[in-house]
Amino acid sequence: MTHRVGVIGGGQLARMMIPPALEMGIDLRVLAETDDSSAGLAATAIGDYRDLATVRDFAAEVDVVTFDHEHVPVEIVEALEASGVAVHPGSHALTCAQDKAVMRRRLAELDIGIPQWSMATNASDVDAFVAQSASGEVVAKTPRGGYDGKGVRVISQSSEIAEWLLAGPVLLEEKVGFVTEVAQLIARRPSGQTLAWPLVETVQKNGVCSEVLVPGSADPRIGEEAQRMATRIADGLEVTGVLAVEMFVLPDGAVLVNELAMRPHNSGHIFTELSSTSQFEQHLRAVLDWPLGDVSLRAPSGAMVNIFGGVRHDKMSEALARDSRVKVHDYGKSARHGRKAGHVSVVGEETKDILEVARTAVASLALDGLA
Amino acid sequence: MTHRVGVIGGGQLARMMIPPALEMGIDLRVLAETDDSSAGLAATAIGDYRDLATVRDFAAEVDVVTFDHEHVPVEIVEALEASGVAVHPGSHALTCAQDKAVMRRRLAELDIGIPQWSMATNASDVDAFVAQSASGEVVAKTPRGGYDGKGVRVISQSSEIAEWLLAGPVLLEEKVGFVTEVAQLIARRPSGQTLAWPLVETVQKNGVCSEVLVPGSADPRIGEEAQRMATRIADGLEVTGVLAVEMFVLPDGAVLVNELAMRPHNSGHIFTELSSTSQFEQHLRAVLDWPLGDVSLRAPSGAMVNIFGGVRHDKMSEALARDSRVKVHDYGKSARHGRKAGHVSVVGEETKDILEVARTAVASLALDGLA
Repeated sequence: MTHRVGVIGGGQLARMMIPPALEMGIDLRVLAETDDSSAGLAATAIGDYRDLATVRDFAAEVDVVTFDHEHVPVEIVEALEASGVAVHPGSHALTCAQDKAVMRRRLAELDIGIPQWSMATNASDVDAFVAQSASGEVVAKTPRGGYDGKGVRVISQSSEIAEWLLAGPVLLEEKVGFVTEVAQLIARRPSGQTLAWPLVETVQKNGVCSEVLVPGSADPRIGEEAQRMATRIADGLEVTGVLAVEMFVLPDGAVLVNELAMRPHNSGHIFTELSSTSQFEQHLRAVLDWPLGDVSLRAPSGAMVNIFGGVRHDKMSEALARDSRVKVHDYGKSARHGRKAGHVSVVGEETKDILEVARTAVASLALDGLA
Repeated sequence: MTHRVGVIGGGQLARMMIPPALEMGIDLRVLAETDDSSAGLAATAIGDYRDLATVRDFAAEVDVVTFDHEHVPVEIVEALEASGVAVHPGSHALTCAQDKAVMRRRLAELDIGIPQWSMATNASDVDAFVAQSASGEVVAKTPRGGYDGKGVRVISQSSEIAEWLLAGPVLLEEKVGFVTEVAQLIARRPSGQTLAWPLVETVQKNGVCSEVLVPGSADPRIGEEAQRMATRIADGLEVTGVLAVEMFVLPDGAVLVNELAMRPHNSGHIFTELSSTSQFEQHLRAVLDWPLGDVSLRAPSGAMVNIFGGVRHDKMSEALARDSRVKVHDYGKSARHGRKAGHVSVVGEETKDILEVARTAVASLALDGLA
């Protein structure tokens, strides 16, 4: 019997699960939002992931359900689980990925360091939190639904998020004076095995991941601490599949968790070339409860640079000509300003060298140009 | 504009072009023989590749036509070329891959070493060739249409190929006393760039490739000689795309060409994990005349073992549990005795160690069991 994995959501993460699924003979089925989705090649259903009947019909045809994004209502996930469907990550873990306040409470219970935070329900809550801050600036986040910088704003007064407060409580967080931002990718099987990749350094521009470097500038001991934290989180929240833990490294070496994603993540794309097992292969193995694949590195360094706006196919030959190590990943999306349309990965000996190679290729390929 | 590559034939080689096509944003379209082909995910047409109208219609929708196998009649390829279709490899090169006698004449013109050979049209031709041989045995081959040991027979008298002679001339070849069999994979662009992977050692069982090792037991100087020969063949025959040159290494270190394949080849599957650029990605880059990708190795050693008969999906977890470096490739075919159904690749430090790991995984997964 072929193993059938159903992915809810047809974005680039589902698309990048297609190659390892084909290799391992997994029947990958995607519930896509539209008929021209990034993962369209594997789409077996088009429909609304917020509609229980649609999701139920889709789930009935697969052995395990997983996700391209974390926006599926938790009530739908719970309904699937109640009727015996294997869903990974499960509703219990997903709740933490969907609600930033729930996540912070659970991380505090697990004794994981996080920035100071508070929930504000009105303007005076906000102004009181700002008044306590050293810099006069704090970070405001909508508790649910944000991604890629959406739903996140640095503010110095409550009026800047007046419309958010009308919609409900807003999460406020100290603006952390970090040295670097890092991400720890880890996979966990339902039966408990965990395996973590080496720590990556992430560079954000306008709140969106722009570049990823391995190894980053952080001390190797930071990497060990990040792996311990990610393992504690994966086990504590019973995450299944790939977990990305985005973190701040402070000047004193302390590590604080910023956000979690319970799926393959932009910060892990470099491992497709750099590691023996990509995050997409590992996610499929994990949700099927198969033994996890070796995550040792194939080269000393890797650099990933995102392509925004759209991929210029007419520039492929030019981009590949600069360096034979350039690997282009196209998400098959129509062009739109600011959209993540693809990425370039380069692996090699020296981080600085390969980062320049990747940036040069992206400068040729990106419709938006380099940020 | 997205680049469109059309592949004639829906076997595992077309299937394994799907991942790099997806990654690079190439619109891969496959003309498959049946509606349950190995490359079915990318099949956009089902039809007979021997029918000109079918192939013409398929070719009209793509920028370049290439192949999963070498059985497309050369007249059809010539007709496409005459109407301006880009076909890689072209009819001139394909003729040599389709007809073993034509190939041997062209290799002789290029001063490439090959075993002694002759064409026999009747029984007395055969018996005369056998009489000249030291061992009393010679290799008989049908000039066209053979693959995976079909159309190849070791004989000691003409009666063993009586039915072949009724169908037409038979190629006779000295039975070479080789030390090892090797294969040299190389890619060539229409504009002339060539790039060769390191030499691989191949192990055949019953005339079919069973295992591939990198590095093999051959002296490094054999590798250099094999690369020179493959480059001369690729340039001399104006091959475009991937060329596999199967060779014999003799006790005195001489290298003789056995057969050619002008497409990705079983002997190159290990490069999917072992090299920075797989033969499938390279083939797509080559037929699009894009710069070729880096072929340096990601690890010291690689071993590939074929899975015959069928892949036991119920044994996936068991096969992966033995060693985290095991990579399973399933061709998505229905089970049939003797059929190539998939392969296992392992890369690592020591050839002997990883070969055992790969064999153990195949022992779990293969319906036919190990040969």
